[in-house]
Amino acid sequence: MVAFSDGVIAIAITLLVLEIRPPHDTRHLLHGLATLWPSYLAYVVTFMLIGQVWANHHIMFDHIRSADRVVLFLNTLLLMDIAFLPFAASVLAEAFREGHGQRTAVVLHGTAFELLAVLFNVIWWYAGRDRRLLTDTIDSTSVAAISRRFRLALVWLATGTVLGALLPALGVAVFTAFILYYWFPIAGEIRAAKCRHDRGNQK
Amino acid sequence: MVAFSDGVIAIAITLLVLEIRPPHDTRHLLHGLATLWPSYLAYVVTFMLIGQVWANHHIMFDHIRSADRVVLFLNTLLLMDIAFLPFAASVLAEAFREGHGQRTAVVLHGTAFELLAVLFNVIWWYAGRDRRLLTDTIDSTSVAAISRRFRLALVWLATGTVLGALLPALGVAVFTAFILYYWFPIAGEIRAAKCRHDRGNQK
Amino acid sequence: MVAFSDGVIAIAITLLVLEIRPPHDTRHLLHGLATLWPSYLAYVVTFMLIGQVWANHHIMFDHIRSADRVVLFLNTLLLMDIAFLPFAASVLAEAFREGHGQRTAVVLHGTAFELLAVLFNVIWWYAGRDRRLLTDTIDSTSVAAISRRFRLALVWLATGTVLGALLPALGVAVFTAFILYYWFPIAGEIRAAKCRHDRGNQK
Amino acid sequence: MVAFSDGVIAIAITLLVLEIRPPHDTRHLLHGLATLWPSYLAYVVTFMLIGQVWANHHIMFDHIRSADRVVLFLNTLLLMDIAFLPFAASVLAEAFREGHGQRTAVVLHGTAFELLAVLFNVIWWYAGRDRRLLTDTIDSTSVAAISRRFRLALVWLATGTVLGALLPALGVAVFTAFILYYWFPIAGEIRAAKCRHDRGNQK
Repeated sequence: MVAFSDGVIAIAITLLVLEIRPPHDTRHLLHGLATLWPSYLAYVVTFMLIGQVWANHHIMFDHIRSADRVVLFLNTLLLMDIAFLPFAASVLAEAFREGHGQRTAVVLHGTAFELLAVLFNVIWWYAGRDRRLLTDTIDSTSVAAISRRFRLALVWLATGTVLGALLPALGVAVFTAFILYYWFPIAGEIRAAKCRHDRGNQK
Repeated sequence: MVAFSDGVIAIAITLLVLEIRPPHDTRHLLHGLATLWPSYLAYVVTFMLIGQVWANHHIMFDHIRSADRVVLFLNTLLLMDIAFLPFAASVLAEAFREGHGQRTAVVLHGTAFELLAVLFNVIWWYAGRDRRLLTDTIDSTSVAAISRRFRLALVWLATGTVLGALLPALGVAVFTAFILYYWFPIAGEIRAAKCRHDRGNQK
Repeated sequence: MVAFSDGVIAIAITLLVLEIRPPHDTRHLLHGLATLWPSYLAYVVTFMLIGQVWANHHIMFDHIRSADRVVLFLNTLLLMDIAFLPFAASVLAEAFREGHGQRTAVVLHGTAFELLAVLFNVIWWYAGRDRRLLTDTIDSTSVAAISRRFRLALVWLATGTVLGALLPALGVAVFTAFILYYWFPIAGEIRAAKCRHDRGNQK
Repeated sequence: MVAFSDGVIAIAITLLVLEIRPPHDTRHLLHGLATLWPSYLAYVVTFMLIGQVWANHHIMFDHIRSADRVVLFLNTLLLMDIAFLPFAASVLAEAFREGHGQRTAVVLHGTAFELLAVLFNVIWWYAGRDRRLLTDTIDSTSVAAISRRFRLALVWLATGTVLGALLPALGVAVFTAFILYYWFPIAGEIRAAKCRHDRGNQK
């Protein structure tokens, strides 16, 4: 199931580029390429977010021992949402390029992101009830740390969507900050990672 | 062969999104997005069905020991049908959006689904003759259970296609019910799964 | 390298469907779908041929012990030709639909097929010189059998391309016969396969 | 991570073909196909270059023991650049076909190539600091050889981009030479490969 999910995520992330249409007027190509900036922005934000989703999907399923039919169903919903993102990115780019409908587009994009966070939380909660589907190697501190991480995404992306309904550019800024936050670990996490690394070397 | 099939299925399921074209008029983006509902419907129904196909493809080939040239040929036909589904989904969405040709579109979609069921039945029947190509670990009760499951799909999808020729919306409803039925196991299956799980734990 | 090649082949085979454009006039949908028959034909012929290529690619690389830089380069050319086939299939469909340019389209399609056969022959010849890159498990009879198979493809597809330049429909018929011939083993091969199977059972 | 990267690279390389649009006028199909030569050129150059990137990505990650968050982040940037190449190839083909904007198009294409080389160098430099993330099996001579190879790419592609800004055709020629140089090993490398091969046989 993880290999299949990897495949869908890899394809969705690569299809994003199809939404950037080359300018037809090559007489003013530099200008034409410059006016596509909303497409580049939508490409970068959505690409980095799907990259995050891929990494977190692995973190989650590394700790899930076996997938029952409910997990399979929820994971299919997750993939359906991920595969939908190239459309959302395309709508976002078009709205910013045309200068109309940005609110709607940001809310659509944010809702697709938020649904991802909801599904991550539901899968993790379902697998973690009485530790039924979790591997034995994960301790409860790590389970709680992952839960916290997923809940934060839930709140952060919901905030971005709501703010985007009021002020579209602010919504995009909140999504960008989310990506940066998740890619660049805060000091505490770095220290924790260093600890793990040192312990690993001592073995 | 299973890895290659997984690849084709993953790509076909992700290409579905390309059939949802972003509205060009961003002045009334919310309205434009709303009128795309047949595309979303076709996306969800076809995505969930391909998800089912993927799961059942694994269930089937987990029990097939080796694939001879006939299995390889039939599997290629199966993949050719799966890869055709984005086109069928696109035709379905267009017909419902335009308000014309829904009967034809539902019959096309249903026929592609039905052909999948036919191929699943033929491959399973071929592999199961004298248990020639089956693994030793599967007992005859399980073989019969899978056969029953595949025959039911054959009848169900044929019914949906015929009903869809009379009343398109009814056909789509029958396909949706099919997906729900296969994702949510009936009581008996749950009990059986629990048994297996308990037995697994006792080992 | 085999996994990467599998990926490219799986994607190319699935992208074929994007060349079948849904008819825009849904008022006469059945008619519209019927006029797309050249697209279905190009889809089926190219899909089955790429399926063959995939199977033969595995047969070949199962016997190649290690790939040096030359094999890597030739394999990249092979993939470049496979990935080009959706374009060739699209041109073929368009020419038969419009009723013009069928000769050119069949020659383009046939040349892409022929180039595949050339590359298969070159890779196999290169790997087989003094058995440098072959595995130890393959005997010289099998090496010769594979060589014969690849040489036949070379002649068959060249014949189809030349005949297609004279009479397009005949060229397509020769390609179709080629696919059928390779999928359905001739009597001798069946007997050989049975022998192998029996010997396998006796172990 | 390597499997996911392989997936994205395989998809990006295969999506290149979508940028070659079949000519609509099939009355003069041969002429129409001939005028697409810039598309074929962009297809071949970009395909061979992504093929190179794939091979070098494997060479690099074969020697990287473990990927921390920084490597994961840099690799995601690398994939984002690779997935962008079908767009750059499409712009290149359009500019040469239309006879306008070739400078801009070559600089865009070259910059995307150059960014790849930068990211390769940064990842290799980061992983190699105090040999922190490298495997134990690689000696310092090999580390230096790979570093040299990556630095050469940096200079070569930058040169091609600058020359392309002055004379577009010259830029494309420099990129082509780069691909040929990397595929066909120079005499020294061949001798080294032969040595390795001989030593391997003696074992």
